[in-house]
Amino acid sequence: MIDPAAILPADDDAMAAARALHARLTKPAGSLGALEELSVRLAGLAGACPPPLPVPGAVAVFAGDHGVHAQGVTPWPQEVTAQMVANFLGGGAVVNAFARQVGASVTVVDVGVAVPLEPADGLLDRKVRAGTRDFTVEPALSRDEVERALTVGVEVADSLVDTGAGALLTGDMGIANTTPSAALIAAFTGRDAATVTGRGTGVDDETYARKVGVVSAGLALHRPDPADPVGVLAAVGGLEHAALAGYILGAAARRVPVVLDGVIAVSAALAAAAFAPHAVHAMVAGHRSAEPGATVALNHLGLTPLVDLGLRLGEGTGALLALPIVAGAVRVLHEVATFDSAGVSEK
Amino acid sequence: MIDPAAILPADDDAMAAARALHARLTKPAGSLGALEELSVRLAGLAGACPPPLPVPGAVAVFAGDHGVHAQGVTPWPQEVTAQMVANFLGGGAVVNAFARQVGASVTVVDVGVAVPLEPADGLLDRKVRAGTRDFTVEPALSRDEVERALTVGVEVADSLVDTGAGALLTGDMGIANTTPSAALIAAFTGRDAATVTGRGTGVDDETYARKVGVVSAGLALHRPDPADPVGVLAAVGGLEHAALAGYILGAAARRVPVVLDGVIAVSAALAAAAFAPHAVHAMVAGHRSAEPGATVALNHLGLTPLVDLGLRLGEGTGALLALPIVAGAVRVLHEVATFDSAGVSEK
Repeated sequence: MIDPAAILPADDDAMAAARALHARLTKPAGSLGALEELSVRLAGLAGACPPPLPVPGAVAVFAGDHGVHAQGVTPWPQEVTAQMVANFLGGGAVVNAFARQVGASVTVVDVGVAVPLEPADGLLDRKVRAGTRDFTVEPALSRDEVERALTVGVEVADSLVDTGAGALLTGDMGIANTTPSAALIAAFTGRDAATVTGRGTGVDDETYARKVGVVSAGLALHRPDPADPVGVLAAVGGLEHAALAGYILGAAARRVPVVLDGVIAVSAALAAAAFAPHAVHAMVAGHRSAEPGATVALNHLGLTPLVDLGLRLGEGTGALLALPIVAGAVRVLHEVATFDSAGVSEK
Repeated sequence: MIDPAAILPADDDAMAAARALHARLTKPAGSLGALEELSVRLAGLAGACPPPLPVPGAVAVFAGDHGVHAQGVTPWPQEVTAQMVANFLGGGAVVNAFARQVGASVTVVDVGVAVPLEPADGLLDRKVRAGTRDFTVEPALSRDEVERALTVGVEVADSLVDTGAGALLTGDMGIANTTPSAALIAAFTGRDAATVTGRGTGVDDETYARKVGVVSAGLALHRPDPADPVGVLAAVGGLEHAALAGYILGAAARRVPVVLDGVIAVSAALAAAAFAPHAVHAMVAGHRSAEPGATVALNHLGLTPLVDLGLRLGEGTGALLALPIVAGAVRVLHEVATFDSAGVSEK
């Protein structure tokens, strides 16, 4: 795994240089709103002004199953996880369409699907175990399993950066995975189950009430310590959550931005930030998921989402919608003329 | 000019087909949030499901000057309009950087810059007059001048569609042009000057108070009739506003989406909608400008913006940030597999 000390604080000099450059570009000061601060943050991450253009993007979709599915927290059968992996590999899912739209690659990582998957182009077999255990009965994972999944995420991040990715995007697939996401968010932020639990991909009132009860029960059984992210992930997490936390840490160690998708991603981001607080400098909140826990987690991380359109699909779709905005913010620092160079009068 | 009857109502059959297709795609119903309804609207515009992909995008930046600049409504000298046109043509402005990011073209149209401009590649000389008159003293434009500027906009839209644009994006440049924008929004929505007037590209308290007074004075002097959009544009509008209204109508007549940028665009969109109410079906609100009048206008048009990041630059920058989201929404209808075709179980 990664040494937290390998994840550096933001570079103040690069951030100051980016702010100073913005003041000289041919636009009124502050007129790019949130994009200006985003570009300053990415300068701080890279330790350079301008920071590298965050293209091309690379999505890693970490797939896993969940023992807590047995508690009836979702109307979807567990077999859909593997079916959707096949759909990703065939290019037929929304994540594929959005990736084509912005020229991003899609890599699917089996870190914990319940059933064996056939080898295929674009699929990495990194299965740590065939789904988690039911966290209402026992810990979802052992600490060793969590650490192996974290390492999978770090290695995938390294590999994508090594092959030229300028930005990493989080993706996920796992029927029932909004339930462990809610439990992780509750554990790391101290909020109660009802506040952070949402309806996922369409549950009715009865299932929703059961889902809140399941999250509460898991937290009550394990009482996870938020200062021990491996312990929290082992108690109530998922294999894709652990791998995503490693992926985020891997991006941060390489000083490459990681665009977070929805509630699964931000719950994993809380684990990454608990492990290495400076990892937050690498995080870009792609969008605000419709799941209530997502907003709780983003606030805890101090992140403001770029896109807020009521999406609740996952897969990496919200991160992909945000990527051109991230790239545009950085491109301004590379390409826009200054008042002096363009001969434009100032006010 | 365009016959309002040439702008068709939305095609209900195509919209119903798009809704039905969404229900069969491999994603939970409604999980793409606002993108689903956007894709349905664009099916209704095109009269086809799926509608054509809205790519490539083409931005037309309509540039003009304003007699009301003499009233001290902005700290920027009027010469900046022509200087920024040169910056656009040199590729050094933010609109150019964002256009490169998303593969869109940028065409600059001089519809009313105060000074003569040198011919240049990418610049269309369609000057109707060298800036408007001061609307606190007399009508900004004659009805004939408005109609000529509207025709410029229609012709630019036609030309861009003829050469392959899949979406038109609005752009604008004109020092002081948030002042006529506020006056247009007040005239079309019936709201008062203080509600719709903002600080544009950075005015202080004293200038802001003067700007509100200027907008009020113009409305009191001319008492424009919102049912007469040519009369409203003549009274308090700008040449770029009139041209943008024509451009929007031209897009609607061709059944091609037009992505609106900020407060200048949405004030022109109110004129277009007053001329031909069905034109609203072609409009996509690219972003929510930080100018308060923009939100008033969007609400009046019934449009929800895609991007809301505090931008207040204009030029077409907000529309360009939204374009990949618009394209992604349509691409889903083209490329995503159905539950049946992908062998994915339903809940």
